[in-house]
Amino acid sequence: MKTEKIAFIGTGVMGASVVKHLMRASFDVTVYTRTKSKANALIELGAHWANTVAEAVREADIVFTMIGMPSDVEEVYLSESGVFANGHAGQIVVDMTTSSPELAVRLAEKAQSLGMFSLDAPVSGGDIGAKNGTLSIMCGGQKELFDRLMPILSVFGEKIVYQGEAGAGQHAKMCNQITVAGTMIGICEALAYAMKSGLDPDTMLQSVASGAAGSWNLSALGPRIIQEDYEPGFYVKHFVKDLNIALREAEALQLELPGLTLAQKMYSELLDKGYGEKGTQALIKHYINS
Amino acid sequence: MKTEKIAFIGTGVMGASVVKHLMRASFDVTVYTRTKSKANALIELGAHWANTVAEAVREADIVFTMIGMPSDVEEVYLSESGVFANGHAGQIVVDMTTSSPELAVRLAEKAQSLGMFSLDAPVSGGDIGAKNGTLSIMCGGQKELFDRLMPILSVFGEKIVYQGEAGAGQHAKMCNQITVAGTMIGICEALAYAMKSGLDPDTMLQSVASGAAGSWNLSALGPRIIQEDYEPGFYVKHFVKDLNIALREAEALQLELPGLTLAQKMYSELLDKGYGEKGTQALIKHYINS
Repeated sequence: MKTEKIAFIGTGVMGASVVKHLMRASFDVTVYTRTKSKANALIELGAHWANTVAEAVREADIVFTMIGMPSDVEEVYLSESGVFANGHAGQIVVDMTTSSPELAVRLAEKAQSLGMFSLDAPVSGGDIGAKNGTLSIMCGGQKELFDRLMPILSVFGEKIVYQGEAGAGQHAKMCNQITVAGTMIGICEALAYAMKSGLDPDTMLQSVASGAAGSWNLSALGPRIIQEDYEPGFYVKHFVKDLNIALREAEALQLELPGLTLAQKMYSELLDKGYGEKGTQALIKHYINS
Repeated sequence: MKTEKIAFIGTGVMGASVVKHLMRASFDVTVYTRTKSKANALIELGAHWANTVAEAVREADIVFTMIGMPSDVEEVYLSESGVFANGHAGQIVVDMTTSSPELAVRLAEKAQSLGMFSLDAPVSGGDIGAKNGTLSIMCGGQKELFDRLMPILSVFGEKIVYQGEAGAGQHAKMCNQITVAGTMIGICEALAYAMKSGLDPDTMLQSVASGAAGSWNLSALGPRIIQEDYEPGFYVKHFVKDLNIALREAEALQLELPGLTLAQKMYSELLDKGYGEKGTQALIKHYINS
């Protein structure tokens, strides 16, 4: 058993995989998540269960959070029953939720005022990356803390990059999502064009995927779009949340991003139409059969 | 020496590389291009020079064209001094220009009426793909003709795919360009966001390029954008031509493609501002220092 005691808050699909990697690496992990049933498998594997955030946090050396919306992050960290009210000086908090850079800065300031250390560390790589321990982890905070956490992050991450001061990890994640937004529009428009113009979409993909138009998303999601398989690799509802954050940050930076604006509008419409629990490839619905 | 005599019209950067591959494979190649100096190196390597399209075409078994705008293609094929007026029954014509699917269909019909055979065969892979003989070739026309030409196309292509009837090669190429359009917007907006938000763009790329946001263009052009290197891998002026064709075709198909529409508008503005001879990565100018 490693000496560090870890509290892990939020054991959704991604979080649960990360916890498994931490336990395999012999860390002592206490978990808390809103719906206890989502943690049962982890408890069976040896994780301790905490009935509240406060209980999870109290004894921990390091607190990881991987939750839903920025409002959840605020609640978990800043409420009376939250991390900061129940933590202690010297404790390390690592938020892996994709959340707002502005909030990450606020959390870092609050942590510092309490003698705690904080890192924003959102990830990319999806459920598969989490399962295989190959996540890309984008980190913002003090460089010293980053270096200190590297051995633990390496347990479930492959590409672990220090992006800069508090909030920089979240900013890098926004860059990731902005890139994906444009790419998804290109992919879905090409497939819609292929279908309408009478091409065989699979044959089109054969020509297009391996060349200058190729991308991770085209290879991973192009075939699913053709098969009308909208099972989520990444939820529309989460993507809308991320695009909303990116757009708000871009506005604060006085940066006009028409591609992001378009994507946010299209994905929001998709959410309104009830596709929130589908994968991002459901954007094709904007063009075909909608 | 192979038995087929080839005429090759249009020896720009891409065309010249293709001709070299054909000659290395022992084909007898006659070249014509608007500016003779662009063919000098090929003539030194053993290509025959023709003073006119008519002269190039007359003795050829197979005519390849790889020229600029659809208007050039019309001129070269349909004018009094062009391919059809000077060709002969049984001859094969292969247009590798990225041109309009509608025009490809017209050329195929005209060829058929003259007892000639035609294939539209636009390529992807850029100057490097042409140089290395690894082009992706998207083919439209009769399947029999495609099969018959496969050994010759293999001389300079790697991914050679039959897309369907006349025009289908051009349609597939439009899908390629539509995909690239969305991807380029995503890439440039992510880099603009990185720069404005105070991230180090190179460090951002480290996190983003290898994951779910990764693409051929991000890896190839992201670093050039950061280095403010706008040398063309693919010309803005040619991309605008392609996006114009795609948009016109989409309209004809009654397909609304807002991402393509946005890209066409942004790249057209870039052209108006004098960036036509720059590479597609110059789109960053729309966001930074513009």
